[in-house]
Amino acid sequence: MSYTLWYWPGIPGRGEFIRLALEASGIAYRDGAAEGGRDAILEALEAAEGPPLAPPFLDTGDSVIAQTAAILDWLARAHDGLAPPGEAGRSRALQHQLTILDALDEVHEVHHPIAGSLYYEDQKDEAARRAHFLRTERLPRFLGHFEAVLARSDGEWLLGDSWCHADLSLFQLVDGLLYAFPLRMTALAVNVPKVMALHGRVRALPALQAYFESGRRQPYGDGIFRHYPELDAV
Amino acid sequence: MSYTLWYWPGIPGRGEFIRLALEASGIAYRDGAAEGGRDAILEALEAAEGPPLAPPFLDTGDSVIAQTAAILDWLARAHDGLAPPGEAGRSRALQHQLTILDALDEVHEVHHPIAGSLYYEDQKDEAARRAHFLRTERLPRFLGHFEAVLARSDGEWLLGDSWCHADLSLFQLVDGLLYAFPLRMTALAVNVPKVMALHGRVRALPALQAYFESGRRQPYGDGIFRHYPELDAV
Repeated sequence: MSYTLWYWPGIPGRGEFIRLALEASGIAYRDGAAEGGRDAILEALEAAEGPPLAPPFLDTGDSVIAQTAAILDWLARAHDGLAPPGEAGRSRALQHQLTILDALDEVHEVHHPIAGSLYYEDQKDEAARRAHFLRTERLPRFLGHFEAVLARSDGEWLLGDSWCHADLSLFQLVDGLLYAFPLRMTALAVNVPKVMALHGRVRALPALQAYFESGRRQPYGDGIFRHYPELDAV
Repeated sequence: MSYTLWYWPGIPGRGEFIRLALEASGIAYRDGAAEGGRDAILEALEAAEGPPLAPPFLDTGDSVIAQTAAILDWLARAHDGLAPPGEAGRSRALQHQLTILDALDEVHEVHHPIAGSLYYEDQKDEAARRAHFLRTERLPRFLGHFEAVLARSDGEWLLGDSWCHADLSLFQLVDGLLYAFPLRMTALAVNVPKVMALHGRVRALPALQAYFESGRRQPYGDGIFRHYPELDAV
């Protein structure tokens, strides 16, 4: 397999969920946009079968797959270790992945509650109103859900003794939330100790250290995870 | 297999995407909430392995799967006819399904742009503002995308000569949009003739006629697809 991952350069975004899976599994891949930037993505998007609606998409050499969860599920079927073996385990990993991506959508919506095509500055009032509900209802609900999943697990990961792609994605969700909502996350952390411990374990995974030290991990800032102090509160 | 589908009674919602797949495939299932209502769902949710964050979830007899796209992907792997055979076809069906569900999320967000826990009446101003962008940017983008997928297909369905679960879901998305945004959809329809023709073909599928005539299909009204005349416009 000769993989090329296509995602917008300069932000972690949804691409990071796939990068973490590729890196943690030691699967070789080319980063399409690292070389050609946004123009290269738009060209690849235009040429791709499928076609994708938007990045991320993965060119496997044989075909092009879009949608973060579909890509991760495809990788988990092609490579051992990204999900428990067997149909039930792979479906469960996909289920958890989709719930994490639902939470990610809401983290994006909070600073763009009216339109993705408007600047944040043009929807600040609505964002402030929505952020209250993200902080007080939605983050506790999503993080509490995964705390319950971990409490029921036979091991320290979502699906037992080994991490799966959903564990890597839960790390990324929590990591981005710690950047975007540090006050609220510090307050919530005490209620979800298993989720926070999982975040720490993924951060320390030997297979990811080279990537974390490579400078290739994209910084937060202007993508899904944004730190607007006015949207954060204890 | 002995399936039980769990979803909130009284609305089509995300449950309808799974019902259409089960009905069109002739797969027998029990509707958990039709008998026990909301209390029965909450009990099943509490007891379910996984656990699901929210309905819909499917009890397969062996396990419980949540998340609409994960359920449909699971069914497509367990039963012939819901996706093209082979890993590439099943992944592509999942990709399209996820894009349809992304559109569905935006249709829900339009009347609840601040919080799902607030009434529409408490977020009408924000909804009116967001609806402008749904009508002028997002619906043309999503429907135009599927028009392009159909234009590239070898057959009259998204993935060739046979329908897959994503075709049934695209029908449901368009059907709900026709209910919720009749003015806008009438104007958009001329630009997406292949999508509208697909909607008509699914409506006429022989395998679905008994279901459509059964009275079991839940009415639109208070769920994801809502017709607020003030949010619609040509």
